[in-house]
Amino acid sequence: MTTTQPSVPCPIGRAVGLLGERWTLLILRNANLGTTRFDAFRDELGIADNILSNRLARLVEAGLLTRVPYRDGGRTRQEYRLTTAGAEVLPVLHALAVWGDKHTEPAEPTGPLQVIHQRCGQITTPGRACEGCGEFVRREEEAWVRPWVSPDPITLASPITTDA
Amino acid sequence: MTTTQPSVPCPIGRAVGLLGERWTLLILRNANLGTTRFDAFRDELGIADNILSNRLARLVEAGLLTRVPYRDGGRTRQEYRLTTAGAEVLPVLHALAVWGDKHTEPAEPTGPLQVIHQRCGQITTPGRACEGCGEFVRREEEAWVRPWVSPDPITLASPITTDA
Repeated sequence: MTTTQPSVPCPIGRAVGLLGERWTLLILRNANLGTTRFDAFRDELGIADNILSNRLARLVEAGLLTRVPYRDGGRTRQEYRLTTAGAEVLPVLHALAVWGDKHTEPAEPTGPLQVIHQRCGQITTPGRACEGCGEFVRREEEAWVRPWVSPDPITLASPITTDA
Repeated sequence: MTTTQPSVPCPIGRAVGLLGERWTLLILRNANLGTTRFDAFRDELGIADNILSNRLARLVEAGLLTRVPYRDGGRTRQEYRLTTAGAEVLPVLHALAVWGDKHTEPAEPTGPLQVIHQRCGQITTPGRACEGCGEFVRREEEAWVRPWVSPDPITLASPITTDA
């Protein structure tokens, strides 16, 4: 896609050239949960402004996020919206969630991340067919509960499809 | 597991604390394809010795690889073998392969990475039920062809299960 990605023959190598970076994955996690604004990413992630600027610019350049203007009082600002390519990082996030849940421990006991199939209301394993109804979990029917943040389910953000 | 991983409440955050790093993911890719020795990782990845040493030590400390002695002529050396936790990074690699194949391009045209269900011999999408026979693809039945390296399928490495 861009110069931010090596163009090696292996698709994993190419993906890792962009996605193999901690802040990038955390930004994409939160973007998939609906975060769009610079200040919100900063506050949620506890990331330094310069690092956040750099990572957002790389993700825009690589086509995973796109800048969209919004009105903030009298000013026009830019927010960062997921593209299809950014939304399709979801299976990577699912796989990381499953691995992290199985192979690592939180410092303080906490309720687990829950993925809910909103169509049937059941909790299911990330990235699998719904364990409640057996159907494929469509993105727009998927919500996450992060009990350490809030008991309320968050429906995944919809990508905007104006990019190439 | 260890001090190399932050112990935040979010399992994705914990996974990314360890796996959100380019060389780490490339080492785990090659370890899943059967690479075990320091010199082989170095030659395959083109990684500097000091970075490779550091990443291997982190992966051992975090329990994804384990050191196993082997005889090299008259000397005893250590090789790096996948644990269950290291082998179970496979769904992350599958998801990265699918994303990279769809959203990035190699610099030179090349045949794609192929995942083969060896039990039925069909090519299938990484991480899905076999598109040939419909069955779940067990790890020990999965082989990869990386045509830019060799036309020969590589059966995935088996983890050793002596770790906790």
